[in-house]
Amino acid sequence: MNRIRMTIAYDGSGYAGYQVQPNGGTIQEELEKALKKIHKGKTVKVTASGRTDARVHAVGQVIHFDTPLEIPVSNWRRALNSMLPDDIQVKEADQPTGGFHARYDTTGKEYRYFVRNHPDPDLFRRHYTSHVKAPLDITAMKKACGYIEGEHDFTSFCSPKTDLKGSKVRTIFKADVESRGEEVVFTFKGSGFLYNMVRILVGTLLEIGKGKRAPEDIPDILKARTREAAGRTAPPQGLFLWKVDY
Amino acid sequence: MNRIRMTIAYDGSGYAGYQVQPNGGTIQEELEKALKKIHKGKTVKVTASGRTDARVHAVGQVIHFDTPLEIPVSNWRRALNSMLPDDIQVKEADQPTGGFHARYDTTGKEYRYFVRNHPDPDLFRRHYTSHVKAPLDITAMKKACGYIEGEHDFTSFCSPKTDLKGSKVRTIFKADVESRGEEVVFTFKGSGFLYNMVRILVGTLLEIGKGKRAPEDIPDILKARTREAAGRTAPPQGLFLWKVDY
Repeated sequence: MNRIRMTIAYDGSGYAGYQVQPNGGTIQEELEKALKKIHKGKTVKVTASGRTDARVHAVGQVIHFDTPLEIPVSNWRRALNSMLPDDIQVKEADQPTGGFHARYDTTGKEYRYFVRNHPDPDLFRRHYTSHVKAPLDITAMKKACGYIEGEHDFTSFCSPKTDLKGSKVRTIFKADVESRGEEVVFTFKGSGFLYNMVRILVGTLLEIGKGKRAPEDIPDILKARTREAAGRTAPPQGLFLWKVDY
Repeated sequence: MNRIRMTIAYDGSGYAGYQVQPNGGTIQEELEKALKKIHKGKTVKVTASGRTDARVHAVGQVIHFDTPLEIPVSNWRRALNSMLPDDIQVKEADQPTGGFHARYDTTGKEYRYFVRNHPDPDLFRRHYTSHVKAPLDITAMKKACGYIEGEHDFTSFCSPKTDLKGSKVRTIFKADVESRGEEVVFTFKGSGFLYNMVRILVGTLLEIGKGKRAPEDIPDILKARTREAAGRTAPPQGLFLWKVDY
């Protein structure tokens, strides 16, 4: 068997999320459907670095699968792209050595979150940004980002719907926010992220940006270790899984 | 009756075009459906500056309609936006005097056409650009644009499916192309445009950009006065009705 690794991008707008589940189409389903065609009806299981929620996008999701086919690795990308719908795209493919595993071998991830900060919505960006009408205080949000960086117990920034039993301590290497024209872009790099963590971080930062909370509230929110202490969960469509590190 | 004028934007991806027709939903249908609700079930006819094709977008389409309602003009925009789907948006509303007509009073229009010029597609721009892999010669296309400007008989750049019986002479005030990062943007301003004219102009310019035709071919194509002389019709999703002048 040959283990193939792929970096894939997808527009999550039309999907119920990455992972196969009873309701609605998923990215994994589309990948496995395309691989099944290439394998003449045989099922091939795809393993990703992790899930993404409904309507969340990826520019650098990483997957692996095992195949008995002896297709040169340089042809895998084109082969799969010709079978995939136009909202899922293979960007790179290679054949890693030494038992690579897309999920267990991750050392970190980067997420970005895009907000349109303008009185009017931009309908051409509606699937790729969330819309905040009130002007946002970038300086205050930047200060708050400083409190997010580092090793913390992020229980307050984790959805109670998580099925995680273990520790909720994670290390955020970088949390930042910048203004780009009519958009505000949040960047988070970390050792790992809990369920809905980025969206709850963004929701809380947006409340700080609107002046409803102070940057100095972050340490207290972390200390509280309860979801109620943090802000709202920001909507999914602004979120992009940007890069997975190994 | 009060005549209301509106500037509207729409993402044409999900529509069969602007104008009401038997197959598939249209922008006009959505506008009239929303107005019908506001008028408690009474039909209100909407007149636009002109049609746009299936999958073509607008950032500055202009419409008018007549209403017996005495809603302050400053509230019309919000009223209609609250009823419209999220891919159609009223940007401005006013109450013009002197019998304004959205179609008959136009003095010119501006269209823009966006091309992604890169070996790989960008799936987040797939509904708003057409994709050209081969590198494009901007200088050659700019030169060709010079031949398009001015008053010409544009029969060669008009779809034979047109129902226009009259003259196909139009004046192009401006034809231009520029490179913006990974995209190439075409701009056309003119007194009026024939059926598929912008898309045939772009399709022909792209053949010049790829070196398959010379900029100097444009005068001959115009002179030929037959659709076969020009290039392919570029796909609809890169096209935006940008502005209508009165």
